[in-house]
Amino acid sequence: LCEEPFNHTDSCPATKPSMLNVHLVPHTHDDVGWLKTVDQYYYGGRNYIQHAGVQYILDSVVSELQKDPARRFIYVETAFFHRWWSEQSAKTRNIVTQLVQEGRLEFVNGGWCMSDEASTHYSAVIDQMTLGLQHASIFAQMGYDGFFFGRLDYQDKGRRMKMKEMEMVWRASESLKPPTADLFTGVLPNGYNPPAGFCWDQSCSDDPVQDDPELEDYNVDDLVNKFISISKAQADVYKTNHIIMTMGSDFQYENAIPWYKNMDKLIHYVNARQKNGSAVNVLYSTPSCYLQELNLAKQIWPIKTDDFFPYADDAHDFWTGYFTSRPALKRYERLSNSLLQTCNQLEVLGGSQSRDGPFGKGDSETMRRAMAVAQHHDAVSGTEKQHVANDYAKRLGIGWDHCQVLVSNSLAALSGSNVPRVFCENLNISVCPLTEGSKRFSMNVYNPLARPISWSVHLPVNGSSYSVQDSNGMAVNSQVIPVSKATQNLRRGRGYAKNELVFQVQAPPLGFSTYSIILLGRAGAPDEPKRAAPVSMQNKYLKATFDPTTGLLSGLTNLETQQSIQLSQNFYWYNASNGNDESRQTSGAYIFRPNSSTPYTISSKPVVSTLQNSVVQEVRQQFSPWVSQVVRLYEGSRDLELEWTIGPVPVDDGLGKEVITRLDSSISSAEYFYTDSNGREVLQRRKDYRPTWDLKQTEPVAGNYYPMNSRAFIKDKGSQLTVVTDRSQGVSSLNNGSLEIMLHRRLLYDDYRGVGEPLSEPGEFGDGLVVRGRLLLTLTPPETAADAHRPLAQGMVLQPLLSFQDGTPSAIVEFSALQASLPPAVHLLTLSQWDKDSVLLRLEHQYESSESKTYSKPVTVNLQKMFSTLKVVGASEMSLGANQWKANMTRLQWNTGNDAHIYTCSNPTPWEITLNPMEIRTFLLNVQLR
Amino acid sequence: LCEEPFNHTDSCPATKPSMLNVHLVPHTHDDVGWLKTVDQYYYGGRNYIQHAGVQYILDSVVSELQKDPARRFIYVETAFFHRWWSEQSAKTRNIVTQLVQEGRLEFVNGGWCMSDEASTHYSAVIDQMTLGLQHASIFAQMGYDGFFFGRLDYQDKGRRMKMKEMEMVWRASESLKPPTADLFTGVLPNGYNPPAGFCWDQSCSDDPVQDDPELEDYNVDDLVNKFISISKAQADVYKTNHIIMTMGSDFQYENAIPWYKNMDKLIHYVNARQKNGSAVNVLYSTPSCYLQELNLAKQIWPIKTDDFFPYADDAHDFWTGYFTSRPALKRYERLSNSLLQTCNQLEVLGGSQSRDGPFGKGDSETMRRAMAVAQHHDAVSGTEKQHVANDYAKRLGIGWDHCQVLVSNSLAALSGSNVPRVFCENLNISVCPLTEGSKRFSMNVYNPLARPISWSVHLPVNGSSYSVQDSNGMAVNSQVIPVSKATQNLRRGRGYAKNELVFQVQAPPLGFSTYSIILLGRAGAPDEPKRAAPVSMQNKYLKATFDPTTGLLSGLTNLETQQSIQLSQNFYWYNASNGNDESRQTSGAYIFRPNSSTPYTISSKPVVSTLQNSVVQEVRQQFSPWVSQVVRLYEGSRDLELEWTIGPVPVDDGLGKEVITRLDSSISSAEYFYTDSNGREVLQRRKDYRPTWDLKQTEPVAGNYYPMNSRAFIKDKGSQLTVVTDRSQGVSSLNNGSLEIMLHRRLLYDDYRGVGEPLSEPGEFGDGLVVRGRLLLTLTPPETAADAHRPLAQGMVLQPLLSFQDGTPSAIVEFSALQASLPPAVHLLTLSQWDKDSVLLRLEHQYESSESKTYSKPVTVNLQKMFSTLKVVGASEMSLGANQWKANMTRLQWNTGNDAHIYTCSNPTPWEITLNPMEIRTFLLNVQLR
Repeated sequence: LCEEPFNHTDSCPATKPSMLNVHLVPHTHDDVGWLKTVDQYYYGGRNYIQHAGVQYILDSVVSELQKDPARRFIYVETAFFHRWWSEQSAKTRNIVTQLVQEGRLEFVNGGWCMSDEASTHYSAVIDQMTLGLQHASIFAQMGYDGFFFGRLDYQDKGRRMKMKEMEMVWRASESLKPPTADLFTGVLPNGYNPPAGFCWDQSCSDDPVQDDPELEDYNVDDLVNKFISISKAQADVYKTNHIIMTMGSDFQYENAIPWYKNMDKLIHYVNARQKNGSAVNVLYSTPSCYLQELNLAKQIWPIKTDDFFPYADDAHDFWTGYFTSRPALKRYERLSNSLLQTCNQLEVLGGSQSRDGPFGKGDSETMRRAMAVAQHHDAVSGTEKQHVANDYAKRLGIGWDHCQVLVSNSLAALSGSNVPRVFCENLNISVCPLTEGSKRFSMNVYNPLARPISWSVHLPVNGSSYSVQDSNGMAVNSQVIPVSKATQNLRRGRGYAKNELVFQVQAPPLGFSTYSIILLGRAGAPDEPKRAAPVSMQNKYLKATFDPTTGLLSGLTNLETQQSIQLSQNFYWYNASNGNDESRQTSGAYIFRPNSSTPYTISSKPVVSTLQNSVVQEVRQQFSPWVSQVVRLYEGSRDLELEWTIGPVPVDDGLGKEVITRLDSSISSAEYFYTDSNGREVLQRRKDYRPTWDLKQTEPVAGNYYPMNSRAFIKDKGSQLTVVTDRSQGVSSLNNGSLEIMLHRRLLYDDYRGVGEPLSEPGEFGDGLVVRGRLLLTLTPPETAADAHRPLAQGMVLQPLLSFQDGTPSAIVEFSALQASLPPAVHLLTLSQWDKDSVLLRLEHQYESSESKTYSKPVTVNLQKMFSTLKVVGASEMSLGANQWKANMTRLQWNTGNDAHIYTCSNPTPWEITLNPMEIRTFLLNVQLR
Repeated sequence: LCEEPFNHTDSCPATKPSMLNVHLVPHTHDDVGWLKTVDQYYYGGRNYIQHAGVQYILDSVVSELQKDPARRFIYVETAFFHRWWSEQSAKTRNIVTQLVQEGRLEFVNGGWCMSDEASTHYSAVIDQMTLGLQHASIFAQMGYDGFFFGRLDYQDKGRRMKMKEMEMVWRASESLKPPTADLFTGVLPNGYNPPAGFCWDQSCSDDPVQDDPELEDYNVDDLVNKFISISKAQADVYKTNHIIMTMGSDFQYENAIPWYKNMDKLIHYVNARQKNGSAVNVLYSTPSCYLQELNLAKQIWPIKTDDFFPYADDAHDFWTGYFTSRPALKRYERLSNSLLQTCNQLEVLGGSQSRDGPFGKGDSETMRRAMAVAQHHDAVSGTEKQHVANDYAKRLGIGWDHCQVLVSNSLAALSGSNVPRVFCENLNISVCPLTEGSKRFSMNVYNPLARPISWSVHLPVNGSSYSVQDSNGMAVNSQVIPVSKATQNLRRGRGYAKNELVFQVQAPPLGFSTYSIILLGRAGAPDEPKRAAPVSMQNKYLKATFDPTTGLLSGLTNLETQQSIQLSQNFYWYNASNGNDESRQTSGAYIFRPNSSTPYTISSKPVVSTLQNSVVQEVRQQFSPWVSQVVRLYEGSRDLELEWTIGPVPVDDGLGKEVITRLDSSISSAEYFYTDSNGREVLQRRKDYRPTWDLKQTEPVAGNYYPMNSRAFIKDKGSQLTVVTDRSQGVSSLNNGSLEIMLHRRLLYDDYRGVGEPLSEPGEFGDGLVVRGRLLLTLTPPETAADAHRPLAQGMVLQPLLSFQDGTPSAIVEFSALQASLPPAVHLLTLSQWDKDSVLLRLEHQYESSESKTYSKPVTVNLQKMFSTLKVVGASEMSLGANQWKANMTRLQWNTGNDAHIYTCSNPTPWEITLNPMEIRTFLLNVQLR
């Protein structure tokens, strides 16, 4: 098992130990969508928007690499490479394979795209990396020994340059034992661009090396002097006698000739100076080769344990707006992830009929690719042009279509019913023609989690009385309530259901349960909500109180722990800056810059109505024509739901608006608050503070915003108020006990980061996008908070898939693919078909090492005893990206001054596997359907 | 001698006789200077001005041609190709040679540049073509079987499309027997661009062929439909089932990949339609291959005998401004041509010492190349940016330096004196430190013509009395006159000579004469001119009368023929249009568009002074601070000289000015006038009329301007008034008896043809360029006019070169390389070193077939008896471009309905050769210095 993996660095260029070695790394940065769509970027379509055609980059680079074995190139985005590869002849493929084997063409990152950092959920990132590496791994071992990036806070960069801390070891997890989560990390000297004056792309205007002394503009001496001077200045802020220069930028190398021709000359003329005593040695290189040299330097590297948020590239230029930009796209991406996981699982569980069954051909690949593209840092980030955002959504939509066919086929196999299934995608605005019109229908609730779940459903109906039965034929308590005015308003003709049928459902782990709904009567109308605020609403777990004067939330009590906090909540908007004397910086797709630290209150006294019954209690609050909320408490729920609806945000007044909700509590949080990192680990945040440098705060609001991927919380000794959200958002805590979440943004100006459009989503009707979302609030002691928010957030990410069939339920009404629920600490992260006989399984310990007394401990599961419908006949552990056997994985060792460890070969994978806190383990299982 | 020449067309692609064959011709158009200098264009320097780097075009095209034998490319500008070739490895050179031999890379034009049409003199054009072909001819025979161009009057084009006369036989000379001067000429369908929507250069934004049906923007069907529709529409206006499409444009193919990749796909998908019945067949081709198909079509082609001037691309957009733009550059180019011919001759006559002698290493090649570049259609045309105009002038200036060393070396050999020689380049503003300060100096007058000449010189001096002796020691009549006020003003510190020494010199054919000048006294000052207009000035040949009231010219009399005309002359300026409601078109570097047809008079009564002595008579006229003139008559002269000085043209009033001089005579010219074509044949022009179509005149002034390269005239039955000029200019005749010549232009707006600058030359002092020039007037009977203007114009083009030595004259004071003057009809067009033992000789019959009773007849010379100092041991006749043996020259035969003739092999060149009117014959002579 410990065969020697293919190693790029065997073929690294020679360097000179006594000299300053300048590693030129030719590269291109190819967004899989930004100002143009991924297809337009690939082909070079609509070049009037932006000149960019990736097909030619790969054509040209491969052509130029062949001309000189010294030349090198790195490539990142497999989404593009994959397309290009599929169009190449066998001859070209052989050439490319050879170039890769010789280390002249190196894949870096290797994901389907270059993921966004703030707004992506880790499960989607892992998927997109796996997809990318699956295609790229035909060439090389992708061991991540290092990470290089360009964007970090300008103050942080300044300090690092001064302290020679541009390169470090990033210890990204407190839970995982070093060096498991250690990543050697380098800050690049010029972002990802070449040094000033040395850009030789067709898109640049720097003078080429003009080396014919007979011509007018001979400039070799000047250029060499300038290059040597830049190199020495750069070496001054790095630790070793090796430095890296990124020779390329956005969509460059469409014509590789000027780049290589001039770099060839630069290398020649700079090195020619050596015979006159120059100690600068320049060479074509790659990140791997550079990294190898750093590793050999045996330096002691500083450790970094926090993250790099928030990013500011100048005093008033905080990239904290995009944490919230395009909230509908961010939600659609999250929902699509949930569907993709279900689709993956059902592809495995339903067998080959899933892909080709009674409803035609379905597949998960379309959604996988759409989701992978959506992870791009100008996709789910919300920083693309509007037409590109539409394209991402369209791709996801097509993914849904393909997955829905697959799911229908799979459920047909598992349920024994070929009756067509309807997936009502508009339940959030109470639209579903089947449930609205049918007298008798069944609802399949598929649960992608490895534990049973309970879920509340609201089905749009027009009857006033229904019978609901579970899969055992037992009656389920249900209520018919009127569709809220807010929902009626925003449907705008897309549906006419008058009522909602509300009830709670259960589903088994990795399986489904079926509910049968029968219309009993149409006469009469359900009670209208009372036009008054209640004093409180409560169930057996939770009590929420309201201010009778304002109708706003005023307190929250956990009835189990008997703890109470004061808690008010309201909606506000920051007035987006249009630039001012201090800085021309505006608020835009990337940048959040309020023109005042005090937001406007939308209403201090909303119009309130109350509805309370045995299934659900709702306080419906209308703050303005464009802001409303339902505060909701379900019968069996331990969390309070805030369902907000915002939009169209009015901008007729010429003011861009960034809408937040703020929770103000009696919790003594001081300036601390907590946010999750990509839905996984939680980081402590502190107002006006950065762990690694002495912050000079220049934007009191925007400079304190952080991404909240799935949750955020504040706490004091006794209480923790946790907010779980349904999508990525920006969050901050600017006052003691306070937590504010940015929900929606509508802006009037571009923010000068290239997108060239103001972020002003038109929505389906052109007058501004309406967005609806949910926040779930829990109040717990801090020490048991994770026990609640981990499953709560996981359930929000992987929510059940509802599907409907007209008429009576299918033969098989309940199904679970597991022999038993997995232990509470274990999350089934991935179950997807790998090839005909094998499936990819990822199991995750979903607790950090110190967050739960109950669950933060190693847990063991047996791979063979896990599935009820799959017989596992073999298992091999793989790297997280599933691109290599875990046993073959070797990584460079970095000296951080206090620890040392190297991966070694391990024994064959046993059936019993143990997960430590925060650990994810990836297995390729050889399976047979039982 | 009749060996089969290499023939491109052997390798032409197969076509389909029953289909419409669309010949795609990949090409690039690379100005050797326009918005950037020739060096900047080659390297791609200063890309912020314009993205263009020719080195990469050739790199990329050669790389892409290798990928598919079907791909083809044509290249034009040898100035660039030569540079690129010199940088290539042997391997690349072999590849390129192979590509040429296979017809995949074809040289078209093959000149050093693509000459301008209007403002170039034929001798310089022949030189630049010879230079280009010399470098290109290593590859192929360059037989010009056809000529394709894009710019012609839009009305003309409209008519030709309607009449299917887009392709024709251009019979460019009435003197030469058809088909000698016949040239098959095609008007290209889209200028030189690809059809709309099919530009796949990196500089274009047309969508590529997007042929993956899985991608969003699949467009194959649309593109193929569009292409077929364009092809059919194009075929409708051409005669055969072959059409040509130029696939490229300015500086395109820097990245050849997108072009070829998309053309490959286009060809594939369009031809794939053939199996569904489409009759359109598209193929890679070249002009040669296209032409071959036209030739095989055996059509009868229309004949064209006039030229295509003036060119208008729209109703108010006449490209007639550039005939005059940058008058100083146009003059410097003409002077440089004269120096180059002298330099060429002296390189031959002085032997090898010329190139490496007492004054160091000299060469003619630098000037030859600078002159070749200066012939470009954005060089001498005056349509380049200012910094590029400066670069052209600088290159010529360096050429002067190199030639002056060569000339000094050669004259040292021929004269026996190694005393340093001074070339006073500023005699036109009376600046020459040597003559100003020396007490005794000699002046060598080198005459590049093959007949003796007489020439008047003005030497700046500070003495008041000088003795002048000719080479025989005979005293020469001389006069000292004061430097004019106008000249003093424009010198602005560049010289302080008070007086000019004026006398007439003679020089033998192709040789020199030496004059000795001795200062006799400094005391006293010459007579100042009288502040009055004379009634007249006259010598024994000519009499000019002046209006005593205005001081303006009023009449001219030829005293030999006893003919008189009324003749007034004055200066005017048209107010340049800034665009108006009718059209936004402005006057600019290209376009002449006055905002009124009536020009402003600068002064109807100039300040006049008169100076008359036995050598020269001058009327000095000051019209304004920026316009002055000297009307001058030398003792032995048959022509009246008008020396005009214009500038700095004031534009503080916000008005762009186009300055003309107008001659209004009593000649009954009606609406006819005559202009020369590139200094050679003369064409009749007629106001508001075009010979080939029914003109709708839309610009009454600009639409009647024509280029005047060396002369223009008006005539009636009895008199012809001929104006010979010293540079290219625009000319018109808008009224009976009138001739107006545009002398200078200073404008405030760009004219939207790409140059992006207003034509407002700053001049040496930044406040506007001052220009001085000369017009020579002759009055003769029409039937003997050519006898006068042919030698007069030839002498203006190839003027004697004056050089000065301090002290006494050299040992050999007179020299002629000819045994005798050539016959008056024979012009020695070229005498230049070809290789060590051979020289290139061009002899020209300088009369048209019907313009002179005396000279318009065949004339015979003996090559062996021509030179006194060269022994001619062999002679072989060559094509005009000297790139092939005349005997090998074959051309396609074109049926024009009334004649037929093919070149056949001729016998070896005899010593006695006969020249017919307008014929130029080119010989490679094997010579030895006697």
